[in-house]
Amino acid sequence: MVWNPTVMKDWQIAEEAEKNLPTPEEYQEMLGLQKDELIPHGKTPKVDFLKVIDRLKDKPNGKYIEVTAITPTPLGEGKSTTSLGIMEGLGKRGANVGGALRQPSGGPTMNVKGTAAGGGNALLIPMTEFSLGLTGDINDIMNSHNLMMVALNARMQHEANYTDAELAKRGLKRLDIDPKKVEMGWVIDFCAQGLRNITIGLGGKNDGFLMQSKFGIAVSSELMAILAVAKDLADMRERVKHIVVAYDKQGKPVTAADLEVDGAVAAWMRNTINPSLCSTVERQPCFVHAGPFANIAIGQSSIIADRIGLKCFDYHVTESGFAADIGFEKFWNVKCRLSGLKPNVSVLVATVRALKMHGGGPAVVPGRPLPEEYTKENLQLLEKGCENMVHLINVIKKSGIKPVVCINSFYTDTKAEHALVKRIAEQAGARAAVSEHWLKGGDGALDLADAVMDACREEVDFKYLYPLEMPLRQRVEVIAKEVYGADGVDWEPLAAEKAKKFEADPKYADYSTMMVKTHLSLSHEPSWKGIPKGWRLPIRDVLVYGGAKFLCPMAGSISLMPGTGSDPAYRRIDVDVNNGKVSGLF
Amino acid sequence: MVWNPTVMKDWQIAEEAEKNLPTPEEYQEMLGLQKDELIPHGKTPKVDFLKVIDRLKDKPNGKYIEVTAITPTPLGEGKSTTSLGIMEGLGKRGANVGGALRQPSGGPTMNVKGTAAGGGNALLIPMTEFSLGLTGDINDIMNSHNLMMVALNARMQHEANYTDAELAKRGLKRLDIDPKKVEMGWVIDFCAQGLRNITIGLGGKNDGFLMQSKFGIAVSSELMAILAVAKDLADMRERVKHIVVAYDKQGKPVTAADLEVDGAVAAWMRNTINPSLCSTVERQPCFVHAGPFANIAIGQSSIIADRIGLKCFDYHVTESGFAADIGFEKFWNVKCRLSGLKPNVSVLVATVRALKMHGGGPAVVPGRPLPEEYTKENLQLLEKGCENMVHLINVIKKSGIKPVVCINSFYTDTKAEHALVKRIAEQAGARAAVSEHWLKGGDGALDLADAVMDACREEVDFKYLYPLEMPLRQRVEVIAKEVYGADGVDWEPLAAEKAKKFEADPKYADYSTMMVKTHLSLSHEPSWKGIPKGWRLPIRDVLVYGGAKFLCPMAGSISLMPGTGSDPAYRRIDVDVNNGKVSGLF
Repeated sequence: MVWNPTVMKDWQIAEEAEKNLPTPEEYQEMLGLQKDELIPHGKTPKVDFLKVIDRLKDKPNGKYIEVTAITPTPLGEGKSTTSLGIMEGLGKRGANVGGALRQPSGGPTMNVKGTAAGGGNALLIPMTEFSLGLTGDINDIMNSHNLMMVALNARMQHEANYTDAELAKRGLKRLDIDPKKVEMGWVIDFCAQGLRNITIGLGGKNDGFLMQSKFGIAVSSELMAILAVAKDLADMRERVKHIVVAYDKQGKPVTAADLEVDGAVAAWMRNTINPSLCSTVERQPCFVHAGPFANIAIGQSSIIADRIGLKCFDYHVTESGFAADIGFEKFWNVKCRLSGLKPNVSVLVATVRALKMHGGGPAVVPGRPLPEEYTKENLQLLEKGCENMVHLINVIKKSGIKPVVCINSFYTDTKAEHALVKRIAEQAGARAAVSEHWLKGGDGALDLADAVMDACREEVDFKYLYPLEMPLRQRVEVIAKEVYGADGVDWEPLAAEKAKKFEADPKYADYSTMMVKTHLSLSHEPSWKGIPKGWRLPIRDVLVYGGAKFLCPMAGSISLMPGTGSDPAYRRIDVDVNNGKVSGLF
Repeated sequence: MVWNPTVMKDWQIAEEAEKNLPTPEEYQEMLGLQKDELIPHGKTPKVDFLKVIDRLKDKPNGKYIEVTAITPTPLGEGKSTTSLGIMEGLGKRGANVGGALRQPSGGPTMNVKGTAAGGGNALLIPMTEFSLGLTGDINDIMNSHNLMMVALNARMQHEANYTDAELAKRGLKRLDIDPKKVEMGWVIDFCAQGLRNITIGLGGKNDGFLMQSKFGIAVSSELMAILAVAKDLADMRERVKHIVVAYDKQGKPVTAADLEVDGAVAAWMRNTINPSLCSTVERQPCFVHAGPFANIAIGQSSIIADRIGLKCFDYHVTESGFAADIGFEKFWNVKCRLSGLKPNVSVLVATVRALKMHGGGPAVVPGRPLPEEYTKENLQLLEKGCENMVHLINVIKKSGIKPVVCINSFYTDTKAEHALVKRIAEQAGARAAVSEHWLKGGDGALDLADAVMDACREEVDFKYLYPLEMPLRQRVEVIAKEVYGADGVDWEPLAAEKAKKFEADPKYADYSTMMVKTHLSLSHEPSWKGIPKGWRLPIRDVLVYGGAKFLCPMAGSISLMPGTGSDPAYRRIDVDVNNGKVSGLF
């Protein structure tokens, strides 16, 4: 069954497709699970991770397919849509295929129209559940995170009100937290710019501790970062212990364990380790699990979901956030290193639109009509812009993977444009296929599926970009030169000082390097398109996450709390009171 | 199967009993549901309210049993435990019985040890799920509530930054909200005293609108109040529209509908109307649905849960929060009036401990050992204290209900003490029974069950305390005199002024009167025990909730945000990483 996405909206396609949503029993059969390995949850059952992974520990893994993209326009080039399209295409070829996607945050859902569920005939269902809350993982993360902040502020109040002796009576030792050095804020899963900078603890001596504070969006929580990289519940429990909530007046970190709140946080998080099951509109099962930021975290669905998917499917498709310079680099050097899993192929999503932009086309601005360069054939801009794609093909090849370029077809593209991109990609040593999954579902993605299956037959000599022993600053140098194409790295004094400290302290030896940089350019400057030349990467600061074990060199600013605009999506969202159906989401 | 609660902790009993937790199929059979009327959700399926109530609309209701209590000590007298005990006792008598309880908030769970799941052999399972999150209703309420605040603050920012013409381009009309008259705060489901008084919107012009603000605990949200009284999804949707978020500079209310966020709020709330199923340790099904405050709201599980329970069970047990002067009064004049349901009997829970306190016993202080008066026989204190019980028996009788007094047995009680209370209760015209459900489960509650069944055979000429036409101040006068035993009511000028306005405006004609008063005394002064004499009830203010349609005369202060103490329960909570089991909760 294929629907016409040029006349039907995504939610209409979803509504039709959901009439045929897999039942829990069907999911169980598709994944080869035993009955007690599926945890009932409305239309989106969860999979009992600990049980499944233990039972299948000796089963060989399926093929591991990562989806990444060239440097995108601000409109995005359709990575999620393509991930779903690959699943559908492989499904049409009769393969046992599934995948994993991230869970979207309520903030963007309520602020901008769109749900990260793909589009057209490459769509994830059930759409409302996926978009609004799903299995509550984000709520569990929000509550657990805020419980740490409750513990922190209450402790500061009690330490201000009680003597050491009085504290000792309660089994407490003074932590002496420095209110000027509390780096962690509270979280809420909406775009609440009014909570970016706040003062809390006003009132009397029992109304908390007076201090500056802040809220971030829930998915930016370190707990979300941890969920994405945790190997299992034991690993999660251990990481929670080391989350740095604040610093004491001597500058020493104060952790969740110091606040004695780590056990309760892990208890509240216990259900989050079980991934939820959704489906493509063509009935390929797809895990939805975790939704971390792609700057301060890995920006990918969880290691747990990939581990299960590789046991349950012959082909498991997973998407990396941002473009290949960020998303693939983190998949390659962080996610795969932490999981020990080896990918078989990476699919690099390219669009004629984005390539023309890299070739010098005018700026693409959300909300404004596309300039003519993008809607009419223009082989010159396109050929020039292909250098961005070739650069990223070469980056991927450094890992040992030979990528497949997916030319994600738009209806304004011409055949000559597609042929040009395909030729250049193949000349650069990649497989390439034009794909029309948005328009035609799996039937439109057969060439892509064939290229992916073909690639999966090759052996991959997978190697990391840098060894774990390499010190932080050298790692950043390697990433900047080899991946971003910079001439070198400039460390600002604060960043250099911190980096030296981290390099000298064996405690940080196994911390992952998590680059923070815009995804709109290979460089740190969003407006530099194509392949920027003759530039150096500035590192302004290095953030540290003690639980997730991330060191984040900052080559760009990050906002952990987006804002709600003047025409937000919630204005158009409503529910049918007769049947509970939600409208206006898409 | 009965466990020994003098040697086993509640969580140990729960763990044993949960081996025999009803499966979804068993729940379905117990409740006489069709397969598609049960919504899968882990161990605690939800019931599809709209489907069930429509199919069973012509089925006669079962017997409606309310559980309330005498004025308690600060330790509580075991209403939840007794509610579960009655279900178990009736179950032992072979009755088709079930009930409804409130969902506990995460704040008290993490701050004080205890889970509101009853105790001993009168216990609700699964205990961890019940205590931590359950089906996520509180999360949905928290998110929906905060979405209104996001909409409010973002709108204030945009109105400050844009001209009328710029607003009009976005289809917006200036609301001109008065930042000094924003009554609503944000919510979080923990005891976060540091968020009681905050300043938000610090920073630049795109960092929100600078104003004073506050957080309350999530269960104090007006949305929770609405969930408890909503008849169905349509009613909920309509009420959300009228929630007053702020006032404009002319003093006119600004509602959720004015912010165009009401549809999205209702959409996010859509799943909350379906109650969750839990079970007593003796396998009587029990709905858990809503958990509103007992001061600014009705403090009872939902009308929806009672409506379904009365269709599915021959005997449906429901608990009212606080003591009978608050809880029963609201059940009687608000909940039953809104639902149109008629109760068959009220069970008034009394303990020898609380009665002795009313007879002049020393103060009962949580955390300190009980004075000897409470642990040794003392018929004199007890007899004197029974006046509180007799007063409340008489209050209940004014509704037409002849109550059953449950003497909730403690192991320090003597037979003579039990006999004395029973005799006085019977002299006052009530049925009475000693119950040992905590120690013996249903077998300990047989006398109580018999008394309840006997009472249910009587016709009840149920009548409200006041007619809907009675103006606000007169209603409060009637409640103060007839229920609390006051000599009259003193209105402070602000309160009188507001009351006059409400009485004159037909818009408020169908608003419920929701008294705010301490539950630790019949009066407004917590330390006045027994039956306070020669006092007048002071009303300081009248709060208005436009969505829930409540007018709340304030005879006491309320805190909508409790504090976290210096030895909070979270210190002892943890999770077993091998099986996800939570320890330390109980």
